[in-house]
Amino acid sequence: MIENSYYSQDQHGPYELYDIGNLELEEGGTIRACKLAYATFGRLNEAKDNAILIPTWYSGTNKIIEQVYIGKGRALDPDKYFILIVNQLGGGLSSSPHNTPPPAGMRNFPHVRISDDVRAQHQLVTKKFGLESLALVAGGSMGAQQTYEWAVRYPDMVKRAAPIAGTAKNTVHDFLFTETLVEAIISDPGFNNGFYSSSTEVREGLLRHAKMWAVMGWSTEFFQRERHKTLGFSSLDDFIINFMYAYFSVMDPNNLLCQAWKWQRGDVSRQAGGDLRTALRRIKAKTFVIPMSSDMFFPPGDCQHEWRLIPNAEFRPIQTIDGHLALFGADPDALQQLDKHLGELLAVEI
Amino acid sequence: MIENSYYSQDQHGPYELYDIGNLELEEGGTIRACKLAYATFGRLNEAKDNAILIPTWYSGTNKIIEQVYIGKGRALDPDKYFILIVNQLGGGLSSSPHNTPPPAGMRNFPHVRISDDVRAQHQLVTKKFGLESLALVAGGSMGAQQTYEWAVRYPDMVKRAAPIAGTAKNTVHDFLFTETLVEAIISDPGFNNGFYSSSTEVREGLLRHAKMWAVMGWSTEFFQRERHKTLGFSSLDDFIINFMYAYFSVMDPNNLLCQAWKWQRGDVSRQAGGDLRTALRRIKAKTFVIPMSSDMFFPPGDCQHEWRLIPNAEFRPIQTIDGHLALFGADPDALQQLDKHLGELLAVEI
Repeated sequence: MIENSYYSQDQHGPYELYDIGNLELEEGGTIRACKLAYATFGRLNEAKDNAILIPTWYSGTNKIIEQVYIGKGRALDPDKYFILIVNQLGGGLSSSPHNTPPPAGMRNFPHVRISDDVRAQHQLVTKKFGLESLALVAGGSMGAQQTYEWAVRYPDMVKRAAPIAGTAKNTVHDFLFTETLVEAIISDPGFNNGFYSSSTEVREGLLRHAKMWAVMGWSTEFFQRERHKTLGFSSLDDFIINFMYAYFSVMDPNNLLCQAWKWQRGDVSRQAGGDLRTALRRIKAKTFVIPMSSDMFFPPGDCQHEWRLIPNAEFRPIQTIDGHLALFGADPDALQQLDKHLGELLAVEI
Repeated sequence: MIENSYYSQDQHGPYELYDIGNLELEEGGTIRACKLAYATFGRLNEAKDNAILIPTWYSGTNKIIEQVYIGKGRALDPDKYFILIVNQLGGGLSSSPHNTPPPAGMRNFPHVRISDDVRAQHQLVTKKFGLESLALVAGGSMGAQQTYEWAVRYPDMVKRAAPIAGTAKNTVHDFLFTETLVEAIISDPGFNNGFYSSSTEVREGLLRHAKMWAVMGWSTEFFQRERHKTLGFSSLDDFIINFMYAYFSVMDPNNLLCQAWKWQRGDVSRQAGGDLRTALRRIKAKTFVIPMSSDMFFPPGDCQHEWRLIPNAEFRPIQTIDGHLALFGADPDALQQLDKHLGELLAVEI
């Protein structure tokens, strides 16, 4: 285990922990006394039909979802809905490499798949909260991967689905991009095969990782129009160090690698013997497929390809130059478009 | 100096060497007894008005230009034109870090700018060949940077210009991408601050560099449509190792870094006190701006932005899913489009 004050109630609270016992993983490992960290907003109604589930993305926690997406008068309105945000395994608040006792932690933490997260969340949702349906599952990036997994795995339970800036089956190109993120970290001699004694020993690897996120996470136009300056940074270097690196440098490298491995292999077709068409046909949820127009690694084209295979789906791209990281919410116009789409999706009678 | 059989007549010949003497560089250094490696095709006519100059791109030499772009019946027809391909400084055949004797070689090789290449080429073109005009300057990527530099610096001499998949002023995003390429190499402990004794000691850095080229060089759709398989590779790994890495692994790391530094800082506005509009207005050449539609780091939008500032220019994007590396010529349809554009440009009466 590694002390890391970033993964704390101070930084991301309030959140609760739910012990789901031993989670047997699809790849063969087991997370013992597996904990899911979650936060809730609003109240469950008597009919128990107003629950919204939101899984988290790579490096994200419940906190950014709360701050950027939830609010009175917004689509995700806690006055109307019971909103449950569940932190993904490996994300640092739920069971993760850095908070698992030896010998199972750090680089020995087992490989986790999107499906493992979704099965664990299903246990939380049904056993802890007694839910039999979800009015909406929505998530961005790896949250979209989990949203698709939910909709395919539990089609009768998910009434509406909003996969945002993510795919049901990860693409070869996206796999390769993520591989370069992984290698940026593990190539740092300070990484020491995953048994560093502090994240600061992996400083150079985390800086390279942050720069590669800057290349692929935003868009060419984002920099051309100097959005990084309007966000309050005086130069590219200032933006890289004080935004991108500041964001990632406090995180645990093994946690990031756990998430990256999972991200690379997100694929609902595994539920149908590798047949994506068959898997996506199982979806009963009213689905809005919501890519970001300038996304460089979950591009609209890849999302549109999957949208065509989903029975009751609409393609609702968001126009933005903030690329994939429009998810961060720095483009208010993109947020407004998203709210509109989510509002319309929630208004659909099921 | 480092023995490297890749940079040889065997691999890239026949080419000639021209000694332009000491080249004083814009950044303050000097390349002593500076050599330009060039290859020619066709014959100069009596009027000396049928010369075409083609500078090279990052990692490229005269050979790929010859093989992919020049041919009887093609736009660049040696039966009609005198075609001169000049290898850029740092590219491995002209004066470069690996072939410069100590103490000035390897990591001590001075910083070279696009403008240094173009001034050196001007000397070759005027003194060696006695040319007073160029019917066309055309080049891809860093070759486009040199093409723009030529058209702005020697406006009366360049009659037609075809910058392909490149910009006149490098963008912040492109600078950042190139920085990640640089760091992939220099972060390898085997790089040893540039004083390795063989490229193989920088094996891991060159492999990371190759993977990042694979992420940004092609396009998401290229992999989605399995173009890497139709090119003869059985899997992503096979493609990465036996195409991307095979290509870069034989090159000299310091040579690549010399070119990368130059690429990052390509900027014709330096000729006009930083005013891009003023610089581009100097162009007298009939100019076709030719981006690749799916290029991830010299995207059509960035090229279009510059096209608007050039007096007598047409915007002629090439439709392809091969991204920036459509330059390699693996998409015959892209080549056909390019030939059409170059043919039409050469047919314009000046």
